[in-house]
Amino acid sequence: MTVSNGLKDMIACDTRISSISDDRLSYGGYDISELMTNKATFEEVIYLLWNGHLPTQIEYNHFVKELRANYTISDAIEQCLLIQSRPHLHPMSVLRSTVSLLGVYNLQAEERSVEAVYEQSVQLMAKIPTIIAAFARLRTGQQPIEPREDLGFAANFLYMLNGEEPSNLEIEAMNKALILHADHELNASTFAARVCASTLTDIYSCVTTAIGALKGPLHGGANERVFDMLVEIRELGDVEAYLSEKLASKEKIMGFGHRVYKTVDPRETYLREMAQALTAGTQEQELFDISRQIELFMKEKKGLIPNVDFYSATVYHVLGIDSSIFTLIFAMSRVSGWIAHIQEQQKHNKLIRPRSAYKGLSHLEYIPINRR
Amino acid sequence: MTVSNGLKDMIACDTRISSISDDRLSYGGYDISELMTNKATFEEVIYLLWNGHLPTQIEYNHFVKELRANYTISDAIEQCLLIQSRPHLHPMSVLRSTVSLLGVYNLQAEERSVEAVYEQSVQLMAKIPTIIAAFARLRTGQQPIEPREDLGFAANFLYMLNGEEPSNLEIEAMNKALILHADHELNASTFAARVCASTLTDIYSCVTTAIGALKGPLHGGANERVFDMLVEIRELGDVEAYLSEKLASKEKIMGFGHRVYKTVDPRETYLREMAQALTAGTQEQELFDISRQIELFMKEKKGLIPNVDFYSATVYHVLGIDSSIFTLIFAMSRVSGWIAHIQEQQKHNKLIRPRSAYKGLSHLEYIPINRR
Repeated sequence: MTVSNGLKDMIACDTRISSISDDRLSYGGYDISELMTNKATFEEVIYLLWNGHLPTQIEYNHFVKELRANYTISDAIEQCLLIQSRPHLHPMSVLRSTVSLLGVYNLQAEERSVEAVYEQSVQLMAKIPTIIAAFARLRTGQQPIEPREDLGFAANFLYMLNGEEPSNLEIEAMNKALILHADHELNASTFAARVCASTLTDIYSCVTTAIGALKGPLHGGANERVFDMLVEIRELGDVEAYLSEKLASKEKIMGFGHRVYKTVDPRETYLREMAQALTAGTQEQELFDISRQIELFMKEKKGLIPNVDFYSATVYHVLGIDSSIFTLIFAMSRVSGWIAHIQEQQKHNKLIRPRSAYKGLSHLEYIPINRR
Repeated sequence: MTVSNGLKDMIACDTRISSISDDRLSYGGYDISELMTNKATFEEVIYLLWNGHLPTQIEYNHFVKELRANYTISDAIEQCLLIQSRPHLHPMSVLRSTVSLLGVYNLQAEERSVEAVYEQSVQLMAKIPTIIAAFARLRTGQQPIEPREDLGFAANFLYMLNGEEPSNLEIEAMNKALILHADHELNASTFAARVCASTLTDIYSCVTTAIGALKGPLHGGANERVFDMLVEIRELGDVEAYLSEKLASKEKIMGFGHRVYKTVDPRETYLREMAQALTAGTQEQELFDISRQIELFMKEKKGLIPNVDFYSATVYHVLGIDSSIFTLIFAMSRVSGWIAHIQEQQKHNKLIRPRSAYKGLSHLEYIPINRR
């Protein structure tokens, strides 16, 4: 038996979905820089993650059509959202329950043919944005907005959330943010989903699992706290004073450093560019300027680099997304990777089942309760 | 890096909760034979799994009182069950969603103090039987029955399910079945729950995860299929003919063999005893007799031993539990172990995060879609 607390440096499975090495991230063999500079759409990347290759025009048209045909959610799911829309309920818990209920109400959820699993995957991918946008509106007392089949994934989401058609720049930013969060090898939520999948359970159980894991503070939620920091600093009006005080009291500055990336988080660059472009000349440019100052300060004082969560905070805010649902946006993107991993796991399945080392007492004798 | 597909023989963590070795199972150092022959209650075993020792009389009284005070479910949860009570919906998916909703509606679900997590644990443990009994009745068109605080865990569950107070023998059988399913080291649902817990997410996310994993056909559900087989054989009236045909066509006989146990599944003996005692002299004695014949046939022809799922089918049936909810009963017991593992994981936490080995292409160039 090989002992490794937390399974660090253990290889649990093979994959063809994504790879992280030498501070580079690639999906199905494409470095994310290729996908960014060529302005790939999120739909292309979902297709890539699920199929191992980029779609031809015909494949793309077909896939996009299927996604769009599944944007709408049933009245039953809208009812479920309504009873979970009080403002103090945790958004990630609501998403966890609602995705679970999607599975309850899908009478094909127990089917395991390739076609059935594909259909379930498309439905999950297409309906989660509608669920998130409807939830975001309901909990602030607004009516949900029906999805529009003439809009792509990114544009349709922003439309359902804000009630107006986004600009081309906003659509580009949303696509890029979605692509950059789509997959990240065996991160904790993806690994949890694969463990679950290895019992050959249904896809809704696995995605519910992943959402619950992403909810954990060691995993998702950092960009929400980055945004809180930006707002605090904007009110205070002094970046250096704020950061110096935090560092002096040994507090963690959110959005910096990464367990896997050493010199650069390859996703951060593109989010910084989008944050700059989206805020240029607007009221929110101050948020970008503050972010830049924080970045330079942290590099100089601590040698730390910003990670994916740092500029996504500003990007999402400018796109009209409330910081309380930032982690839902993460989930809306990452579900593409989760599904790819669930399918890969089940295609070449082996139950993921390590052992534990027993460290307690043994051979104890039961003493009746009145003599304990 | 150490490679092990499925993490077989890798030690992922230390534990003091349960141990399997030499075909023996023990909880917190007590061999299950000690707990069985001394007729421990399920409540004692929950306490043992959570606290590492059996309770004194005072501790026991206090714990039981807290459990009983939490038996009732809110109107909101009963409403959620009502909208999921159509008979064709999957029981495990309904339990997954309803436990997730318990978390949504518990406004203390994000609290992480020892006291808060204990309170959440007691609530989950106490309310899941009420949820299962209410669900079982609603989907067959019956009104749910309110829990009774004057009854213990096992007796109260049978009372809520069947509407009449169980006999002492029935209570003993239910207690034993619950204890025997309470924990089993790092089985797939427990490991999935620990991976989820290692992100420091909330307990409801972890239990939801475990339910989703237990739903998988490689994990839960075998005793439901054992029962189907018993019914088929009873109708056919010929054990040997049935089994010979199945074996000839290479079909798996459910309820036999185990990955971990080689000479005996230590849980099976006690379930066999209870199945015999419960059916003796009743209409259902035939089910026990058929089971015995199957056991002897399988031992003789295939050298296979019955596992925990084999006699639990008859025990549950005689206790008035419909075979379609057998896996819910497994969950109702195992949640005690899941919670123990979630708490143990978070107490000495290290993110469970193995790596994958990338086996795909790399350095691919993005070709615009119209040239693919």
